[in-house]
This record gives sequence, C-alpha cells and structure tokens, in this order.
Amino acid sequence: MSETRSYPLNAWYAAAWDTDIGKTLLARTICDTAVVLYRRRDGSVAALEDACWHRQAPLSMGRLDGDNVVCGYHGLVFNGDGRCVRMPSQETLNPSACVRSFPVVERHRHIWLWMGDPALADPSRVPDLHWNDDPAWAGDGRTIHAKCNYRLVVDNLMDLTHETFVHGSSLGNDAIAEAAFESTHNERYAYITRWMKNIDPPPFWASQLGKPGKVDRWQIIRFEPPGTVTIDVGVAPVGTGAPEGDRGAGVNGFVLNTMTPETESTTHYFWNFCRGYRLGEQRLTNEIRDAITRVFGEDELMFAAQQKGIERNPHRGFNNLNIDAGSLWARRLIQQMVEAERPRSRLAAE
Amino acid sequence: MSETRSYPLNAWYAAAWDTDIGKTLLARTICDTAVVLYRRRDGSVAALEDACWHRQAPLSMGRLDGDNVVCGYHGLVFNGDGRCVRMPSQETLNPSACVRSFPVVERHRHIWLWMGDPALADPSRVPDLHWNDDPAWAGDGRTIHAKCNYRLVVDNLMDLTHETFVHGSSLGNDAIAEAAFESTHNERYAYITRWMKNIDPPPFWASQLGKPGKVDRWQIIRFEPPGTVTIDVGVAPVGTGAPEGDRGAGVNGFVLNTMTPETESTTHYFWNFCRGYRLGEQRLTNEIRDAITRVFGEDELMFAAQQKGIERNPHRGFNNLNIDAGSLWARRLIQQMVEAERPRSRLAAE
Amino acid sequence: MSETRSYPLNAWYAAAWDTDIGKTLLARTICDTAVVLYRRRDGSVAALEDACWHRQAPLSMGRLDGDNVVCGYHGLVFNGDGRCVRMPSQETLNPSACVRSFPVVERHRHIWLWMGDPALADPSRVPDLHWNDDPAWAGDGRTIHAKCNYRLVVDNLMDLTHETFVHGSSLGNDAIAEAAFESTHNERYAYITRWMKNIDPPPFWASQLGKPGKVDRWQIIRFEPPGTVTIDVGVAPVGTGAPEGDRGAGVNGFVLNTMTPETESTTHYFWNFCRGYRLGEQRLTNEIRDAITRVFGEDELMFAAQQKGIERNPHRGFNNLNIDAGSLWARRLIQQMVEAERPRSRLAAE
Repeated sequence: MSETRSYPLNAWYAAAWDTDIGKTLLARTICDTAVVLYRRRDGSVAALEDACWHRQAPLSMGRLDGDNVVCGYHGLVFNGDGRCVRMPSQETLNPSACVRSFPVVERHRHIWLWMGDPALADPSRVPDLHWNDDPAWAGDGRTIHAKCNYRLVVDNLMDLTHETFVHGSSLGNDAIAEAAFESTHNERYAYITRWMKNIDPPPFWASQLGKPGKVDRWQIIRFEPPGTVTIDVGVAPVGTGAPEGDRGAGVNGFVLNTMTPETESTTHYFWNFCRGYRLGEQRLTNEIRDAITRVFGEDELMFAAQQKGIERNPHRGFNNLNIDAGSLWARRLIQQMVEAERPRSRLAAE
Repeated sequence: MSETRSYPLNAWYAAAWDTDIGKTLLARTICDTAVVLYRRRDGSVAALEDACWHRQAPLSMGRLDGDNVVCGYHGLVFNGDGRCVRMPSQETLNPSACVRSFPVVERHRHIWLWMGDPALADPSRVPDLHWNDDPAWAGDGRTIHAKCNYRLVVDNLMDLTHETFVHGSSLGNDAIAEAAFESTHNERYAYITRWMKNIDPPPFWASQLGKPGKVDRWQIIRFEPPGTVTIDVGVAPVGTGAPEGDRGAGVNGFVLNTMTPETESTTHYFWNFCRGYRLGEQRLTNEIRDAITRVFGEDELMFAAQQKGIERNPHRGFNNLNIDAGSLWARRLIQQMVEAERPRSRLAAE
Repeated sequence: MSETRSYPLNAWYAAAWDTDIGKTLLARTICDTAVVLYRRRDGSVAALEDACWHRQAPLSMGRLDGDNVVCGYHGLVFNGDGRCVRMPSQETLNPSACVRSFPVVERHRHIWLWMGDPALADPSRVPDLHWNDDPAWAGDGRTIHAKCNYRLVVDNLMDLTHETFVHGSSLGNDAIAEAAFESTHNERYAYITRWMKNIDPPPFWASQLGKPGKVDRWQIIRFEPPGTVTIDVGVAPVGTGAPEGDRGAGVNGFVLNTMTPETESTTHYFWNFCRGYRLGEQRLTNEIRDAITRVFGEDELMFAAQQKGIERNPHRGFNNLNIDAGSLWARRLIQQMVEAERPRSRLAAE
C-alpha cells in the first residue's frame, strides 16, 4: 500500500460535517481505514478504528453506553481513547487491549481527523475553511461520494476552464477558457487568479448580480494540501473598480471544497457555497445549493469515467497544458507531503 | 491455494440435507470445487465434479438419463462413478475420459462428501449428528449461506457469551457472560460446559419450560472437527437435580450445526434444533424453527461484517480472552488436520 | 497482457454493423482497448482511442464538431486521424498531442478495425462476409455480447454436434451427432463438411423447405482467422442431387458469424442468417431472425458457464474428441497469428 499511496497520513482530513455526528455510532472509511465516530456526552467527538481488538467485529455494529462503545459481538467496552475498560468473563483487563483512536478537531463546521502519527497532530494545521461558520457569509453544501482518486477532484477545481465544456449551460462560457490567468504560490498555498474583464456574465452570475450589462468576473483559486480548495468567485459591473479592489457594486461568493480519500479510488468530497450578499434569504440558499448540486453532478460523471480510464491504463500518465499550472503545483505540494512520510531507506534505494 | 487453505480435504462435509437431493441435478460448490449431486434410481447419491472432461461445460446444465448424466453441450455421458460411458461421434471411448467423483455417505439426514483422497474415506468418521433422525427427538432446521470463512461460525458457536450481546432479546442474558465454564477435550471432541444455576430463564426458555421460577440452565458444547458443533441446551427448575444428572423436570434440546466451506470466504451452514419434549407438536416445531431463524439472522450480519474486517486487515489476527478457550481448541484441532495434509517438504522448509 | 493475450492484433475485427455508426460518438471496447467511433461528413468512419491525450477523459463523453471530436472536459479538439487541432488557452499546439487512430474499412455491412501495426493494415485481408450485402441473399442479424473468450464461440460454431444437445427442439437431431464429416483446410480457411443424407429434417428446416419427406442436409463450415465463421446450410429432398451439386430443389442459407474480442473474457459476436430463397418476404426475414435469436440464447448461457468453469480451473485445459477437428484447426490458425506477433527474444527464451 505505502508504495502506491497517493495521500499523506500526517494531515487533517474532513471526515464529516459537524451535523453528521451525534450520540450514535457512524461508520466511515477514511484513508482506507475503517473508522467509527460519535459524540461524547460533553459534545466532543471520538474517532476509533472500527474493528474490535478481540475478533475484529466492527464496533459500529455495537452501541454507545455513555461515552463508551460496547462491541456488539462479545461485549468488550472501549472508551473514547480506544482503551478497553471492560471484558465480560475476565477478572483482569489485558493492558494491551485497545483499538486505535484518532486525533479529532472540530472546526469550520467539519470534523477533522489526523490519520498519521498522533504526536504530529497540530490543530493549527487544520485547513482554513473559516467562511463555513463566519456570520458574514451564508450558504449550504453537500457531500459527494466521488468515484475517483481525490487528486482528480483537485485537478478539476484548480483548472476552471472545464466550466466552459462541462458546465456550458450554467457557469461556463468561452471567456474562461480564453482568459489569461496568473499562477502563484507560497509555503502554504498555491493560487490561480483569473480576471475576465468586460464580458457577458454566464447565466448563474447574471441572475445573482441582477443588473444588466457587461461585468468583470473573477476566480481566485487557493489550494491547501492535501485536499482543500477555496475559490473566491464573483462579478461586478464593468468600471466599478473590482479589479482594483472595490467589489462593493458586485456579488461575491466562496466555493469551499475539501476532499478526503476514502480509498485510492473513491473520495469524500465536501463542498459549500458561501455568499456575501442577501444573507438572510434561505430560499436563495436552497436555490444555489440545488443548482450547484446539479452542476457538480456533471463533474461526478467525468470523475468516474476518468478514473476508469486511468485504471485501464495505469502507466500512461497525463500530459500537461498551460491550464494545468494550478494542478501541477497542487500535486507537487501533495507529493512533498507523501515523500516526507517515506522511510529513508526506501528513498535511498530509488 | 494450498498455502492458505483453511480447511482439511480429508474430512466428511455435509453438502446438503437429504431432502435437497432428488432425481435432478443439483449444483453446489464445496471446498472451492464445483460439484453436481443427484440420486440414482436405487436412491443412492452420486457426486461428480461439475465440469465436463471435454470442454468444462458444467454437467449440471445437462440432464439425467437414468443413473447417468448427459452433458448439455456435446452429449458426453458419465455414470455416477464419473466414468464416460458414451461419446457421440466416437467409435471408441477414450479410457481416460472421466470426471472426478466424490465418496458419499448419507447419514443423520445429511449428504456427506469426502473431498480428499478417496482411499481414506472411512464412513465411520462421519460426524455424529444422530439426533437429526432419532425418533426420541423432534425438530426442524435450515441452511444458512454465511458470508464468512467457516471457522468464524465455529468461533461463534464455541463461545455462547455472544448470546448476551447479539441475542439479548431472545436467548441471552447477563448470566451467560458471567457464568464460569469448563473446557475439556479428548482425541475426537472439544467441549465447553457451562452451568448457570439459580437464574431467571431468558424469554425463549421460560416459554419452553412453562413453569414459573428460577432455573438451572446448561449449555454443553461439543466440537468435532472440522466443522460440526452440537450444543446440549436446556433448563430445569432449581432444586430438581439437573446439575446432578436428573433432567426429568426440565426441558432439553440439541442445537445441531455443521459448517461446510463453500469457498474460503463463504460457508454452507446447516443447523437443526431438536427437542426432547412435546415431540408430536408440529406447530411448536415450526415456531421454534422460525424463532431460531430470526436469532441466527443476527449472527449472519456479524459474520459478514467480521469477514469484511478480516479481509481489510488480513495480517492483524485475533486477540484471545478466557471466553475463547473453546474456539482455541477447535482451531487447534482443525489446524492439526490441515497440517497433516501438507507435503512434508513444505513443512521442512518452514 | 501480451503473455496471455489470446487474440492477434494484426487482424481486421468487426467493431460494429454499418448502421451502428452515425454522426454521433459511439464508445466500444475492442481487444481490451477503448475506442470511439463516428462518421465524418463524407460518410467515412473514424476510430480513435477513447481517452484524451491530456487527462484521459473519454472522448466519447464529448461532442462532434463537424469531422472533429471536442473533448467534454477541457475542450481539446482532435480530428479523425487523432491529431489535436485545437487546445484552449494555448497559443501553440504541442506537436506530440494526438490520440491513437485505427485503420478502418467498411465492407460487407461491417465496420472493420485494425488494432495492430497500421503499416500492415491491408484491406484485402478483411474477412469475407460478402453474402451480407449481396442482393442474391436476404436476411437480418443481431449482435450478442457473449460472456466468454471469443475462441469459445469459434469452438461452438466449428462443431455443430452441439445442436443435438443444446438446440434439440429447433435445429438439432441425432443425425448431426451421428453423421460423419470431413475436415480440410488451406492457407486461408479451415473447413468442416457434413452431409446428412436421407434424414428427417429438424423442425426449422422442415418449415423452410415446405415439402414432406426425407431430405439430404448439409453443413459446410468455413473458418477464417481470427474470428469469422461462415456456415453454408440447407436441405433438399432426397434424390434431387444436392450432394452431387444440384441444390435447385432445396433451400440454402448462410449463417454468417464474426467474433471480436472485447476483453479476454467477453466477445462482440455479430451474426446474420442470409437465405437464398423467398428473398422479398420481410416477414420471413423477421421470423427467422427471431427464431435464431432464441436458439443462440441457449448458446449464450453455455458460453458464460463454460467461461466461469475455465476461470475456476485455468490450468486444466480441454480434452479433444473427433468432433473437435474443426476447432483444433481454428485454434491452430489463431495461434499462428498470435505467435507471429511475439517478440523474437521471448520465443527464444521459451
């Protein structure tokens, strides 16, 4: 597995939305590992490997007893740290009896798990998705179970020229594929910035802006490895100064995406669209969420087809164009994290 | 295959209930081998490999002609010993033309096949399930297609503390997990004996006994390798002498189980519940059979989940508790049979 | 793959019926390769590998723009020769940007692809199925998606004794399995010729002939590697001279079959039945087509069962009878083609 693993383990991954987790047992596979998640009575979230120490029965088939999980097969009881605290028919507890527990942080409406070395689990490294619970922004999202490696979703989001071809009836138009863009990066993020000036807005944005005429449109994509992409998007009427920094006459949103490997070929893809205008309109929230659900459905079909093509020809690889600058930087940042986890001896042997 | 095979071949395996086999062709996979079964005109059962010598067409897609099987593709005819007795368009029969036949014994309501060396197929080694057709006992059973290795079913039956956690609403209560038990064995069998004295009976047994008050309850589990488990179960009112040998005031049954590997990860699991009381009541027979079908359905879910967990982490292994004494002995007896079939040279190399 | 490949690549394979291909994109897997097919405006057929050079998205998910294919993901445009002629956001085209194109010949109602070295793609080597579009013959056929290696279908057609056992109610009777046959071959074809003289016709042929009494029946099977089998079939009243060459009093048809590997274990099987009598009767065409569809449905079940048996015991192999003379010659001709494509060094090492 480690030879071909495409994702780092020493990273925070979104395992769920905050509202997905309650005082019941939820089974979810994260990074090829079966995990069971639940909330303790104090509201904190516990994440344990979903396989009993005794006979590998899934703990998620058992039940919660207060803050502890009771295995549904032979009744072993584990606390939220994974330690076995009761064994029926045993006078003494085997001190080695435990299941793996994973560091958890709840932040920005997601439950984040650290799948690697717990000693390295620094909460300050949780990816930045602060718009998700910032009252200055409103929106709603969904979870997509994408039938592809998580990097194909990253590629998709780092090159929005695909909107012209995949989403031509909603978000895309020729302007995106024709517009120049700028690729930059620093130690933490990689960016693609694209300004489409003095264009006709595509249907979605024309409707959001609610004003006739040409617009300046922007897409400022930010990648944070291993799997988080935020996209600052919007339009403003031409001549109102958006490219120079004054977006006041326009409309602005953030497409927030974080992708978590379920397996090498499937992905938990959590997205949200937060807007900075008409915050109180729940109906608009629902309309936008449903419209994006339809648009992203077009991507899902492509993800599955592309993954199937790759599995058919695993050694062929990709060819790159100018438009892939963002994807190339994203994959380079991912690769650095993966390589940092390899045993030194293996690196030396290569 | 032989490296990882978990079952011995030199053993009798139940392939079917007696009533499953008639004068038609039945296809069934036993120990990873496709078999076709049928009755000859004299009532005896024939078992052949289900692949024609000529082009590997399944013989079960053909038809019976008297005691012979006619292949449904090109008409080769095989007798119940597997010898080809007719080849269309051939003047002479190829003397090597045959399919493998398996030794068969019909006993205790099962059709038993010997999948290993026919020279070793000693009918006296058929596992003892005599209650199945003993007029002193009445009952009815079913076949479960369990989605797990057959040893997981053995484990399940050798440790009945799981009743407390899996079957809490019917058979289980805390008394089982708390009661002491005795583990013994001899050359042929491994036993677990558990007496729960002066307890409240669980719902099923309260109903069977039909008398109020505390009971002494017993579970005497007997394992016969590779896959047969009989369980002597019952309750008697406290103080009527059951622990000392007088069960006359109580009710007694036998849970009869025999597990046959279909593949390494699936099992034909034949069970019957025979009771020694109210023998003539067909309605009671049906009620008990249906109740146990429901109870064993709870185990089926666990079997499949456990198997999936093992396949996800094949090298992790199990950890053992006191309650696993019976399972450990059962696996040891199985392992002896498997190792006895390995080539000597391979053993030496290990 | 090449170690175990059962089919030659330097051969013409039917990919479709002529009417399957229009001015839309059709995805089909041929010889384990994903292909997209379409017609150019001049009616000629283009066949490209169904994976974009850029990111392996299936081109069949894109759209046609005149004679070119536009990838549905990022808009790269390929012409019918596979050359990329447009890349959005690129000022210059990468000269190496292309997808594989396959030589195509449209002949005898089929679209034939050459999956090997294009330099060897000689149109004179397209298999002979001229009856398909000869006005002296009338008929209609279908495509079967057979769940087996293509050679199992060849085997089936080269030995029609199976009609006795698989199709006893329509085409077969004991006469076929009992009749002598002659096996011949030349550099291009292998033949099996079988005359059944003075027999009762089976139901299908009795109905076609429409005359009472005994008949002479013929089956003259011709194999052209790697996957084409034509069968000259018919009956004539006894004594009217058919065996001597005068078929004027009888009825004659050709069962035309060409099998194309989709994968090693699945086959595109195109068949047609052309008759030389009652040419103008469309109703008869439909009746025969539907009758044969039912008959071949019986073979499909056997193909899938046989393939499954082979996959269960891949090293067991087949045993051969007199009736397999045609199949043996067919496989020998196939094997010659496959071996001619192996690298010399590998042959030397064997």
